[in-house]
Amino acid sequence: MEKSIQYIRENQSRFVEELFEGLRIPSISAESAHKPDMERCAGWLCRTLLASGADRAEVMPTAGNPVAYGEKIVDPARPTVLVYGHYDVMPTGDPALWETQPFEPVVRDGRIWGRGANDDKGQGFMHIKAFEAMVRSGELPCNLKFMFEGEEEIGSSSLYGFCEQHKELLKADIILVSDTGMIGPDTPSITCGLRGLAYMEVTVTGPDKEVHSGLFGGAVANPANVLAKLVGSLTDENGRITIPGFYSDVIEFTAEERAELGKTPFCEERYKKSVGVRETAGEAGYSTIERTGIRPALDVNGIRGGYTGEGTKTIIPSTASAKISMRLVPNQDFHKIGKLFADHFSKIAPRSVKVDVKFLHGGAPYLSPTSSPAYLAAIQAVEKVFSKKPLPFYSGGSIPIISGFEKILGLKSILLGFGSDIDAIHSPNESYGLENFREGMETIVRFHHYFEKRRPNHGAAEPNL
Amino acid sequence: MEKSIQYIRENQSRFVEELFEGLRIPSISAESAHKPDMERCAGWLCRTLLASGADRAEVMPTAGNPVAYGEKIVDPARPTVLVYGHYDVMPTGDPALWETQPFEPVVRDGRIWGRGANDDKGQGFMHIKAFEAMVRSGELPCNLKFMFEGEEEIGSSSLYGFCEQHKELLKADIILVSDTGMIGPDTPSITCGLRGLAYMEVTVTGPDKEVHSGLFGGAVANPANVLAKLVGSLTDENGRITIPGFYSDVIEFTAEERAELGKTPFCEERYKKSVGVRETAGEAGYSTIERTGIRPALDVNGIRGGYTGEGTKTIIPSTASAKISMRLVPNQDFHKIGKLFADHFSKIAPRSVKVDVKFLHGGAPYLSPTSSPAYLAAIQAVEKVFSKKPLPFYSGGSIPIISGFEKILGLKSILLGFGSDIDAIHSPNESYGLENFREGMETIVRFHHYFEKRRPNHGAAEPNL
Repeated sequence: MEKSIQYIRENQSRFVEELFEGLRIPSISAESAHKPDMERCAGWLCRTLLASGADRAEVMPTAGNPVAYGEKIVDPARPTVLVYGHYDVMPTGDPALWETQPFEPVVRDGRIWGRGANDDKGQGFMHIKAFEAMVRSGELPCNLKFMFEGEEEIGSSSLYGFCEQHKELLKADIILVSDTGMIGPDTPSITCGLRGLAYMEVTVTGPDKEVHSGLFGGAVANPANVLAKLVGSLTDENGRITIPGFYSDVIEFTAEERAELGKTPFCEERYKKSVGVRETAGEAGYSTIERTGIRPALDVNGIRGGYTGEGTKTIIPSTASAKISMRLVPNQDFHKIGKLFADHFSKIAPRSVKVDVKFLHGGAPYLSPTSSPAYLAAIQAVEKVFSKKPLPFYSGGSIPIISGFEKILGLKSILLGFGSDIDAIHSPNESYGLENFREGMETIVRFHHYFEKRRPNHGAAEPNL
Repeated sequence: MEKSIQYIRENQSRFVEELFEGLRIPSISAESAHKPDMERCAGWLCRTLLASGADRAEVMPTAGNPVAYGEKIVDPARPTVLVYGHYDVMPTGDPALWETQPFEPVVRDGRIWGRGANDDKGQGFMHIKAFEAMVRSGELPCNLKFMFEGEEEIGSSSLYGFCEQHKELLKADIILVSDTGMIGPDTPSITCGLRGLAYMEVTVTGPDKEVHSGLFGGAVANPANVLAKLVGSLTDENGRITIPGFYSDVIEFTAEERAELGKTPFCEERYKKSVGVRETAGEAGYSTIERTGIRPALDVNGIRGGYTGEGTKTIIPSTASAKISMRLVPNQDFHKIGKLFADHFSKIAPRSVKVDVKFLHGGAPYLSPTSSPAYLAAIQAVEKVFSKKPLPFYSGGSIPIISGFEKILGLKSILLGFGSDIDAIHSPNESYGLENFREGMETIVRFHHYFEKRRPNHGAAEPNL
C-alpha cells in the first residue's frame, strides 16, 4: 500500500483543488431554494467518482434529494466496503460572521475554509481520493461502493426508502463512514457510540392576531410568555429532563464503565476555551465527557415569536414557536420519546393557549461492536498513521441513518472520522485541516488493506481471477 | 356650533380623501429606513393645518423625528387648547396577513382600512378637520395649538426635550388627545387612567459561536434554554410577577373602588371572541377589566434565538434575546422598575452564560382628574353626541408622554379617544369606523364650546376684541 500513500502525498494539492469545485456548490438541504444545487452536487460527485476510477457512477433518484452512487468491483470473492457520506451541508447562519464567504473555499493557515470543508464534503472526498490512489497504484484490495446522500443534515428521511429499494446493490461486508471527529490532535480515537435524536417543533398560539400589549397585557395569555415557561420547565435545576418516562430506557453505565471512560484524556479548560464559556453546565453528577457521550440532552435549536426587529413594538404576538431536539442514548427509542414529549408538552400547556407539537425527524442511538474485524482493522490503521493506539469515543452527535443501515441492510458501520473540535462544523467559519485531510486518506488506504487481510477466508486458495 | 357640525357632515368624504394622503406615507418610527417618510408626514400635516385655517404651521426639529406644529390664536384672553397627536405608526408585521396593503388605504364596509387609520393619523386628523369646520363656520371658541410628534410608538424620547425647549410656545390651559378608545359602541367612555411602561431587552450569550448541538448538547449551557427558563420564571402560577419589590408601590384599589369598576358593562364572551381565545388569563383574583386597567403586567413582545428558518438545524445558538415590556400602574416608577428587573434578571442567570439587560424606554402611569372643567366639558360633549353619559375608563395602554406633559408643561390631558376594540391597532388590518370618525369630530367641536363656557371668567366682561 506504500505506492498509494506516495500517490496521496504527491497529489494532495490537486485533490484540494478538486474538492473546491464541490465546496462551491451551496448544497444546503434545509433550504428548498437550493434544490437545484443538490442535483448539481450529486452530479459533481459522480463525475469525480468516474474520473477517479469507478466502473460506474450514477445520480440515483430518491423520494427527496438524489444519491450519488458509484462502485468498482475488483473481485466478487473479496470483501466489499460500502462508503457512506453526505454532500448536503448546514445553512450558513449569518453570513456576516464568516471571515471568508462560506461557498468560496480558500486555504489559509494550513486549513481548508468553507461550509462543508469537513462536514461532510471534505471527509467524504478523502474516500474518493484514497480510492483513486489505490486504483492508480494498482493496490485496491477490496471492492468499493460509494453512496453519498443529500439529506443527512435534515434527517436522511429519503435514504431509508432508498436502502429498502436497493438492498442488492448495497450488499457489502461493512459500511465505512467519515463523518465524525477525534478527541484531539494528540488523542486519536474511533467513534464507537452515537447519540440518537428526536427533533420536535412546538407552536403556541394565543390571540388570533397580534394584539396591543397595553390594551390586552395581563388579561390575554401571551404565547411567547407561555412558550418560555413551558420550554423552561422541560429541564430542572439539576439539568435533568422533566418529561415523565424520559429516562426509563436509558442504559446507566456501571461505576467500572464510568471509571474507564474517565481515563479519556480531556482538558476542561481547553474545552471551555474552545466554545468561549466561563463554565460548563449540564446534568448534575456527570462529567463533560459523560454529559455528551452517554447521557441524553434537550436543546432549543431555535425560538421565535413576536417583534424581533429594530427598536420596540408593544404587542402580544399571536404565535411563538421553538425547535427543540433531544439527543438520545441507548436504549431510548426516538418514536417513544417523541410521543412522550408531545403528550407532556400538550398536557402542561394552559387552556388559554393552543399548542401544536410536530415531530420533525428522529434517529436511533448507535453502538459499534469493538471486537469485529472491521473495528480492529480501523484501530490498526489509525495506530499506524497516528503512531498511537486510538481510544474508543462516545460522540454526542447523531447520524441517525447509521442505525437505519443496521436495521435495513443488516450492516454495521465503522465511524472513522478525522475532524477536530476547532473545525466549527455547523457554525460560521467551518474549516478542515490539510493535515487531517492527508492523514484521513492514508488511514483509509490502510483500513482497506488491513480489513481485506482480516477477512475469514484470507489465506485460503484464491478463486480464479 | 351647529354650523360646524353641519359642515362636518357635508365634507366628511373630502376629509377621508385628505386623510388618505397621510395614510399613504409609511411613517414607521421603529424602522430607520423610514426616516425620510417621517419628514414627509410632518410636512403633510403642516400643509393640511395651513389649508384648514391655521395662522402658522411649521415642521420643527427635535433630537429625533420632527414635530408638526400649528396654531390659531383667536384671542389671548380665551382658553387655549393644545391638541397632541402622533403621525408615526407601528410596523406592519407580516404583509401577507393584510387583506389590503397597509399603506394603500381603502374604505370598505363603512370603515377606513390601513396602518394608522385609527392610531393615530385617523384620530389626530379629526382634530384638524373639526378645527377647519369651526374656522370656516366662524365658530372657533378657543385658541388652538397643534403638536403632532413622530416618535410616540417608540417612546416619544425626543418630545421631552422639545417640550423643555418650547415651554412658551406650548402654553395652554389643557391638552386634548385622541389616541385611545371607548369601551364599546354602546358604552361611550373617557379614558381617565393609563398604564405606564418599562420596556427592556435581555440578551443571553452562551458559547461564543453557534455550536453543534450533538457534540456539545448537555455540556454547554444553551442560551435559548436559559432564556426560556429565566423569562418563564418572571411570572408565577398565579400570574403574578416574581421580581422582588415589583408590587411595592402599586396602589391597591379598595373593595368599594373595585365594586364601582365592576359596574362597567363588559362581556367576557365578546372580549374572548374579539381576540380569538378560549379563555382569558392573568393575575389570579382579578377580573379582565382590573387586569388591564389597574394591575401591572409583563409581556414578552418578541423572542428569538438560533435557527428559525425552514426545516431543522442542530445547533446550540450563541445568543438568544427577548424584548420584554412591563405595564405599570400608579404609583410604580418606571426607572425603579427597570432597575429591579435588571438586577433580578442578572441575579437569577446562571454563571454558565452571560446576560445583558438594556432599558429601551419607559413612561409613567397617568391618572386624569375627573372633576376639572375640561373633564366635565368632555363628559358633556360625549353625552350629547352619543346620547349616553360616558363612563370613566382605566386603559391598559400607555402614552408615556402624557405624564411627561404634566411634569414639563404643568398641563393635564383629556384623553378623548374614539377607537373601538375591533380597530386592530398595532395589528394587521388596522381600521377605523367612518361613524367613529364623524362622531369624533362632532364631539371635539362640542368639547371646545363647552370648555370655553366653563372657563372661570366666562360671563365676565369680554376683553376688547
